[in-house]
Amino acid sequence: MKLLRYGPQGQEKPGLLDAEGAIRDLSAHVPDLAGSVLGDLGRLAGIDPESLPLVPGAPRIGPCVAGTGKFICIGLNYADHAAESGLKVPPEPVVFLKATSAICGPDDPILIPRGSEKTDWEVELGIVIGKPGKYLTEAQALDHVAGYCVVNDVSERAFQTERSGQWTKGKSCDNFGQTGPWLVTPDEVPDPQDLDMWLKVNGETMQSGSTRTMVYGVAFLVSYLSQFFTLQPGDIISTGTPPGVGMGKKPPQYLKAGDVVELGVEGLGTQRQTCLQD
Amino acid sequence: MKLLRYGPQGQEKPGLLDAEGAIRDLSAHVPDLAGSVLGDLGRLAGIDPESLPLVPGAPRIGPCVAGTGKFICIGLNYADHAAESGLKVPPEPVVFLKATSAICGPDDPILIPRGSEKTDWEVELGIVIGKPGKYLTEAQALDHVAGYCVVNDVSERAFQTERSGQWTKGKSCDNFGQTGPWLVTPDEVPDPQDLDMWLKVNGETMQSGSTRTMVYGVAFLVSYLSQFFTLQPGDIISTGTPPGVGMGKKPPQYLKAGDVVELGVEGLGTQRQTCLQD
Repeated sequence: MKLLRYGPQGQEKPGLLDAEGAIRDLSAHVPDLAGSVLGDLGRLAGIDPESLPLVPGAPRIGPCVAGTGKFICIGLNYADHAAESGLKVPPEPVVFLKATSAICGPDDPILIPRGSEKTDWEVELGIVIGKPGKYLTEAQALDHVAGYCVVNDVSERAFQTERSGQWTKGKSCDNFGQTGPWLVTPDEVPDPQDLDMWLKVNGETMQSGSTRTMVYGVAFLVSYLSQFFTLQPGDIISTGTPPGVGMGKKPPQYLKAGDVVELGVEGLGTQRQTCLQD
Repeated sequence: MKLLRYGPQGQEKPGLLDAEGAIRDLSAHVPDLAGSVLGDLGRLAGIDPESLPLVPGAPRIGPCVAGTGKFICIGLNYADHAAESGLKVPPEPVVFLKATSAICGPDDPILIPRGSEKTDWEVELGIVIGKPGKYLTEAQALDHVAGYCVVNDVSERAFQTERSGQWTKGKSCDNFGQTGPWLVTPDEVPDPQDLDMWLKVNGETMQSGSTRTMVYGVAFLVSYLSQFFTLQPGDIISTGTPPGVGMGKKPPQYLKAGDVVELGVEGLGTQRQTCLQD
């Protein structure tokens, strides 16, 4: 299934993408794509999409999951992205948190913060947690995954690395976490370690990679993170980016107001953002 | 006012501490100490505490605020703590996020994570945001503060600094963020930069300091952080710790199961935790 949330910001309703690519209203079946609903998505598979109301028009698409408590990111998780950043692949995953207030819909604008000169892009595979878990083994890990989605881990490089330690300031700005369009259930993602991914700026391909070259894979990451804290339904793990970010270009290239960013991960849909000065 | 939340975890009700130190039930007036309620706490000042139901017994005290989206911490914000950590005071605040899943009540146990050998304590002044704010000036900042509280920024030093970059892993474990007992409104905290603070382990004083020696003060921090993201009601800013953490002792001293940690900030109440092996 491809699940999604549509409608104005803060008033999104749950929906399902039917075989024709139209949105069907799921709100008679679940209140939202959040909390315990995420641990039991299988029950939605029994619903005939044709029985659900067709949503008219082309509503805004919101983030594909609600109630996210932790927006966890993995740094330097592609060997060649680490190389372009001038850094080595770390001996264990680099973990940081993005503020959940950065989460927005897949086509919501990228807001360039005041004072920013180095706003950058990062296409990533996102994992959405479905069931609480702690001290999970790798064998248990995938049972806690509700599904997968596209994340743009937008980053301000000066805020991230040039302004007194820790990456938080450059990762957590408003609209720095486009998430969706769809939460795709694992039955439709037979191998999360074999998905092509890409990102374009103003039509020019900047990132072109595959989750095949991810250093620490999905099951490992879910298990690894659960050694530090309880993973909760709605938590998002964004698994790192392949090469081609603006920081790695020679000379570096960053986003400016008016730029259009498009990105996607195979089978998980695409995003399209316009950059606006905040 | 001293506001609090009492009852079993996840089922806390809002309460008010009366002049005799007894808890009065506020739930007929506000659904919880969360969201927009935090932006209008002044209206609760008109309620005669005697008119509120007396809460019998000695219920568990929960975290003094609910619905926290961002649990923001400031690192190395006391010059002498920076020195004991072998680090310089940074030229601007070091900012990191703790997972909100680490937040618990003031007397809830410290859970020592599996594999931990360096679980440490940090008494801190916490700021609770009452109203949304972005790009705030220092002059505007305090108008966005709902109140103050005690925070124990529990930290696992090996996870924090010895396991591949970024402090997140050592700051975000379950029960690593005791918050409360009370949310004390600003009218009862005439000068947040003049509050004594202390922490004891098994009765021995480890930290003894004052917010007077804080490098970056409350109004500056609220303004500074709001340059990076929108501060939302319920967000907590934990402002750093004075000297005396276990990591800074010679030799270093860390928490073990059975240890009792007590801490407090002048006028904001005290916390008492027993350490348990997770």
